[in-house]
Amino acid sequence: MFAATRPEDLASRETLLSMSGLDFMRAILDGTLSQPPITQVMDYALDRVADGEVAFRGTPAFRHCNPMGGVHGGWYGTLLDSCMACAVMTKVPKGAWYSTLEYKINVTRALPVGVEVLAIGTVDHAGRSTAVAHGILRGAADGRLYATGSTTCLIMTPR
Amino acid sequence: MFAATRPEDLASRETLLSMSGLDFMRAILDGTLSQPPITQVMDYALDRVADGEVAFRGTPAFRHCNPMGGVHGGWYGTLLDSCMACAVMTKVPKGAWYSTLEYKINVTRALPVGVEVLAIGTVDHAGRSTAVAHGILRGAADGRLYATGSTTCLIMTPR
Amino acid sequence: MFAATRPEDLASRETLLSMSGLDFMRAILDGTLSQPPITQVMDYALDRVADGEVAFRGTPAFRHCNPMGGVHGGWYGTLLDSCMACAVMTKVPKGAWYSTLEYKINVTRALPVGVEVLAIGTVDHAGRSTAVAHGILRGAADGRLYATGSTTCLIMTPR
Amino acid sequence: MFAATRPEDLASRETLLSMSGLDFMRAILDGTLSQPPITQVMDYALDRVADGEVAFRGTPAFRHCNPMGGVHGGWYGTLLDSCMACAVMTKVPKGAWYSTLEYKINVTRALPVGVEVLAIGTVDHAGRSTAVAHGILRGAADGRLYATGSTTCLIMTPR
Repeated sequence: MFAATRPEDLASRETLLSMSGLDFMRAILDGTLSQPPITQVMDYALDRVADGEVAFRGTPAFRHCNPMGGVHGGWYGTLLDSCMACAVMTKVPKGAWYSTLEYKINVTRALPVGVEVLAIGTVDHAGRSTAVAHGILRGAADGRLYATGSTTCLIMTPR
Repeated sequence: MFAATRPEDLASRETLLSMSGLDFMRAILDGTLSQPPITQVMDYALDRVADGEVAFRGTPAFRHCNPMGGVHGGWYGTLLDSCMACAVMTKVPKGAWYSTLEYKINVTRALPVGVEVLAIGTVDHAGRSTAVAHGILRGAADGRLYATGSTTCLIMTPR
Repeated sequence: MFAATRPEDLASRETLLSMSGLDFMRAILDGTLSQPPITQVMDYALDRVADGEVAFRGTPAFRHCNPMGGVHGGWYGTLLDSCMACAVMTKVPKGAWYSTLEYKINVTRALPVGVEVLAIGTVDHAGRSTAVAHGILRGAADGRLYATGSTTCLIMTPR
Repeated sequence: MFAATRPEDLASRETLLSMSGLDFMRAILDGTLSQPPITQVMDYALDRVADGEVAFRGTPAFRHCNPMGGVHGGWYGTLLDSCMACAVMTKVPKGAWYSTLEYKINVTRALPVGVEVLAIGTVDHAGRSTAVAHGILRGAADGRLYATGSTTCLIMTPR
């Protein structure tokens, strides 16, 4: 796996539309396609891809902190948005794509800097034009719950 | 203004508790205290502080993108969480602090890389133990709406 | 204005599709079309209709309470969902309709039984296929804030 | 089980504070305490109580419909708020109580009038001062998913 650092590292629109979302996610996992650039900035990486479920693994650093020295809510949100949206992606048929309409997260416990977590997204519903997924953020070592989330995505097909 | 790059750059817990939240936010704005490290990673900065309202200014780059080349939902969420939580902070009395329980964001339009936005957070309610705020993300030049959000925070006082 | 008590009191699908959403809402306000049945059960009524903004007026009763004698969260949610979704409706063009994908509400203060409120919904964004709105619940007499909300709706056109 | 029709049918504050939340919920299930009045108005009833999980059973009627003849979003929200908040209640210790700060629901499929559903709420996190739960609404007969939700509650103890 590698992360894109220039626009030309990303899959083209033609490539994207030529594959099912599940194949697209698998191609990122096996390194055929690049990981999104934000994974470098936020220190996380794709970990597992299954039909309807995707996991990322990440570790927050000091540079992801808020003014009080805690991990910023945006770090939790980025990982949860990623795993939930990518879980939806595994349900998107060839020729279609999706966008995130909204997501909500709950932070249930403060995550210390340096603690590795798994962000696991699971599809609840995938219809013709919309999909709903939920996600959890757990300690990779001990399974402690740090955050939960849910999302609504729009599935689009070219006219 | 400068962003913290090491833990010792951040305000100590004693400093935090010795000031009202509004004074704390003003001290970041005038450069007495450091900006949070995540602002460097996500390319945004504190812009305005008022009682109950805080604005950040930021511009997404390619490194904040998702696998489809769009700005990642986590970037919108980070800026909205920042402006909403900091708006709440302006209502936190001296001796108290807060944490974010949850936030939700809606993305209403895809933000192109390189377009500067203002993220404006406004307090709806600030009680003794909880606070609620909402936020909007608008183009800095044209005022176009890109995202909206809401948050619930817990206000805490030492026992 | 009157509330539908039988399915035949509601506008037919043909009627619905023959009008813009704004005209549909105005027809409910002027009594040409019936109010939805749930308004009877939850004790509220349409109060104002404008392009992008709709208000309902309601008063919770003991029968809307939870086991602790407070007004149930479902009452706040019903009024906010109504005003936000109907605000979206005012943006739906003739021949189209909508459905609610999600809504979120914050309760900021406990509303006493018998206190009349205004639930005001406002559209933030109305696109070709989705719309986002927010809402507030305020005391009708004193303007006190009791709850806030946001929603995402899907706009649909017959194929 | 019976539903309260007058304030004096509800448990007093002394009764509420004298029991754990789990015992309180069990007392409603076995008929020692009354069900909340809103269950009558919205046609649902407590079905199961366990430590951290509570289910309600309900069937929407025409009187719960919106202007387009579909079951109103407020009906889904009321059942989900009930099961999620009551799941939190099972974690509230004796002498404490809770209130709902916010809830969010996704409607994944339109529920026809007359179809019985189970609304199942499950606690994700219960701390000293806050709790988070999620809920699902499924067809009682076929298990079809109609809606999902999440909530944040504040747990309070007398000073």
